[in-house]
Amino acid sequence: MLAVDEDRVLADLRTLAEFGKQGTGVSRPAFSDADLKARRWLADQMKAAGLEAVIDGLGTVYGRSPDAEQSILVGSHSDSVPNGGWLDGALGVIFGLELARAGRRSPGIGIDVISFADEEGTWLPCLGSRSFCGELAESALVGVQTKTGERLVDRLAQVGLGKDPLVRLDPHRHLAYLEAHIEQGPRLITETINIGVVTGIVGIRSYTVRFRGRADHAGTTPMAKRRDAGFAAFGFATNLAERLRAAGSPDSVWNFGNVTVRPGATNVVPAEAELSVEFRDQSPAVLARMEAAFHAAVQAAQATLNVAVSSSPTAALAPIAMDAQLIDLIAEAAVESGASHVRMPSGAGHDAMLLARKIPAAMMFVPSIDGRSHDISENTDEADLRRGVRVFAAAAGKTLERLASKNGPPGTPSGRERERAS
Amino acid sequence: MLAVDEDRVLADLRTLAEFGKQGTGVSRPAFSDADLKARRWLADQMKAAGLEAVIDGLGTVYGRSPDAEQSILVGSHSDSVPNGGWLDGALGVIFGLELARAGRRSPGIGIDVISFADEEGTWLPCLGSRSFCGELAESALVGVQTKTGERLVDRLAQVGLGKDPLVRLDPHRHLAYLEAHIEQGPRLITETINIGVVTGIVGIRSYTVRFRGRADHAGTTPMAKRRDAGFAAFGFATNLAERLRAAGSPDSVWNFGNVTVRPGATNVVPAEAELSVEFRDQSPAVLARMEAAFHAAVQAAQATLNVAVSSSPTAALAPIAMDAQLIDLIAEAAVESGASHVRMPSGAGHDAMLLARKIPAAMMFVPSIDGRSHDISENTDEADLRRGVRVFAAAAGKTLERLASKNGPPGTPSGRERERAS
Repeated sequence: MLAVDEDRVLADLRTLAEFGKQGTGVSRPAFSDADLKARRWLADQMKAAGLEAVIDGLGTVYGRSPDAEQSILVGSHSDSVPNGGWLDGALGVIFGLELARAGRRSPGIGIDVISFADEEGTWLPCLGSRSFCGELAESALVGVQTKTGERLVDRLAQVGLGKDPLVRLDPHRHLAYLEAHIEQGPRLITETINIGVVTGIVGIRSYTVRFRGRADHAGTTPMAKRRDAGFAAFGFATNLAERLRAAGSPDSVWNFGNVTVRPGATNVVPAEAELSVEFRDQSPAVLARMEAAFHAAVQAAQATLNVAVSSSPTAALAPIAMDAQLIDLIAEAAVESGASHVRMPSGAGHDAMLLARKIPAAMMFVPSIDGRSHDISENTDEADLRRGVRVFAAAAGKTLERLASKNGPPGTPSGRERERAS
Repeated sequence: MLAVDEDRVLADLRTLAEFGKQGTGVSRPAFSDADLKARRWLADQMKAAGLEAVIDGLGTVYGRSPDAEQSILVGSHSDSVPNGGWLDGALGVIFGLELARAGRRSPGIGIDVISFADEEGTWLPCLGSRSFCGELAESALVGVQTKTGERLVDRLAQVGLGKDPLVRLDPHRHLAYLEAHIEQGPRLITETINIGVVTGIVGIRSYTVRFRGRADHAGTTPMAKRRDAGFAAFGFATNLAERLRAAGSPDSVWNFGNVTVRPGATNVVPAEAELSVEFRDQSPAVLARMEAAFHAAVQAAQATLNVAVSSSPTAALAPIAMDAQLIDLIAEAAVESGASHVRMPSGAGHDAMLLARKIPAAMMFVPSIDGRSHDISENTDEADLRRGVRVFAAAAGKTLERLASKNGPPGTPSGRERERAS
């Protein structure tokens, strides 16, 4: 049982929100002055909690439980999008810090806490967790730059990072990863549910679909003689939405986030159009069905429209399932804490995506008021914050018990390692 | 009977195309160096043809038949869009010049020729013909500027214009207006018809339709909870197209020339969309039906969509009918010249729109290869140019005869004026 101090959690969250404060939210893009100051403050809090704390060469803050040979890793990220919310990422880091404080009183498996660098992708999405999980070659860092062309290696040197060693996942030590996060969506708040138990992180497919017709005078060209790329894009999108709805699950989502039309003049028939298409689902099978529906829609358009239609993929991320045992433990913790819960996919990406490929990982959501995120209007009721850290601590306590019961005496391989070896 | 020299017409067209030559086309935006040089050359040709030629304060070139108290006015414009075609406007001016030469040999009603300034609207669409018809207050000129903010009055001063007197329509003198033009559309060329007899110029209604929803995370927001402004715009456009087709005539056209979506990110549900809507028809009754269909579509969207929908008009031009007698005379001239013809509306605007509100006016089209215009690829077969000037001269000859038979001895009011007075 991990005994947490809810008031201290709230106070820490409010203190962290002072770094880069922006109205009711924060602006802490990775490697901004506010982000770096917040990370130094976090390292100090970790040290005060009795952890060995470092800021690594990419800015990830890692607090190591010094007396334990094995640990569960708990955390999230403390960077934000510009004009972002005060809890996105911060909540998981402060919850982790509080759990580490509570865990110091227990013998056995320790609690390490982490704040990954640049989860929001100011430079590269999940930069810190990619590096931590060994998914980012140091040589690849040279090519990383912002949209405006500033190079990551230059910024790191400028802020005094880049030379320190990088902290890495150690599967012998890190037996599990737990991440608490705000939902960033409206499901919990509108269904009045306290806790989201994340079953997995959805996979994403995204494409650009291009339509090429002919620019004609919109007054003198009879309708039957036009090759209107813009109208073709509109019809394609409405048709594709029906196909995706039929192919998907009730949890599937899709988006046509952008369309551009050229030349874009009121009195000229559009010669070209580009439509962005994205769809997500947690199930690899459903995602494959949606992908087939997408390609069928493109083929149907190619066969029937009098404009040229082509598509090219822009992103493909496989769905990642959370660990089944950890999912059950978080659900049990919610029930025992008197909190309602629902098992749900995460529609957004998180550092847990990277960790889940390497070690058992799980996530817990608290409600977001009005489903808002990536905006200074993002917020969570104080009651939900207090309940959240109680449930999360209970889940971490159960995880520690479960791992301890699997393990032999200290120094022997973990249960997971034993299973692999057997 | 006006005897024209087809070879001279072709030679003049080719000479005029040297001013601002751009590949196979021309760039002669109003008050560019090329436009001004072309206008000076035109004035010289008019003088050589025995006309009294002036370039007025707005650049309109007017050649007056000195021996006649009354005239028909024949012409078009010699400015072009950037990278435009060599015949758009130029054809009507050179045809007019040739008719004026031919008309000098006939007694009675004369032929005046005109090249209006800035028909293409580099500064203001139909600038010259608006001014000529008294539809443009001199005080309004102060506010006229290009998209980039250059003021017309500054450019006029810079090129030495603006101080000369403005030529004006004189209803006592100018008994009719005839304009030859390229079709700027594909109808004549695809239906293998020699001559288009323009029955009128279509009316235009255009609107901006705005959709306001909410920006949401495209991964975490369930489909049922979204207020997607972009998708709403796509559905509105496809629905409106059906309504316009049902409300319109076979000649009606409509266009959704531009759409913009904000914030325009692949993974953000569009919060706002703007769609440009334009429709045209020659019949005021049909245009009114289409307008009603448009407003019904907006109301239906407001009633059914979960985004806010609003519309604002951006342009409204009433249809303008050409003069019924002149239409018949051009058709007769085509038949007598052995040319096939069709009566058709003009989907594009022309200087004749302005003139038709004041005096009997008519237009004649020659085919455009592949329907191209406003592009350097615009062209017309030489045979169609030769046939065109023959038919046009025959039509002008018939017009002169008709007017002469209506008129009393020189000095008395014209037939039209007599009718008004009676």
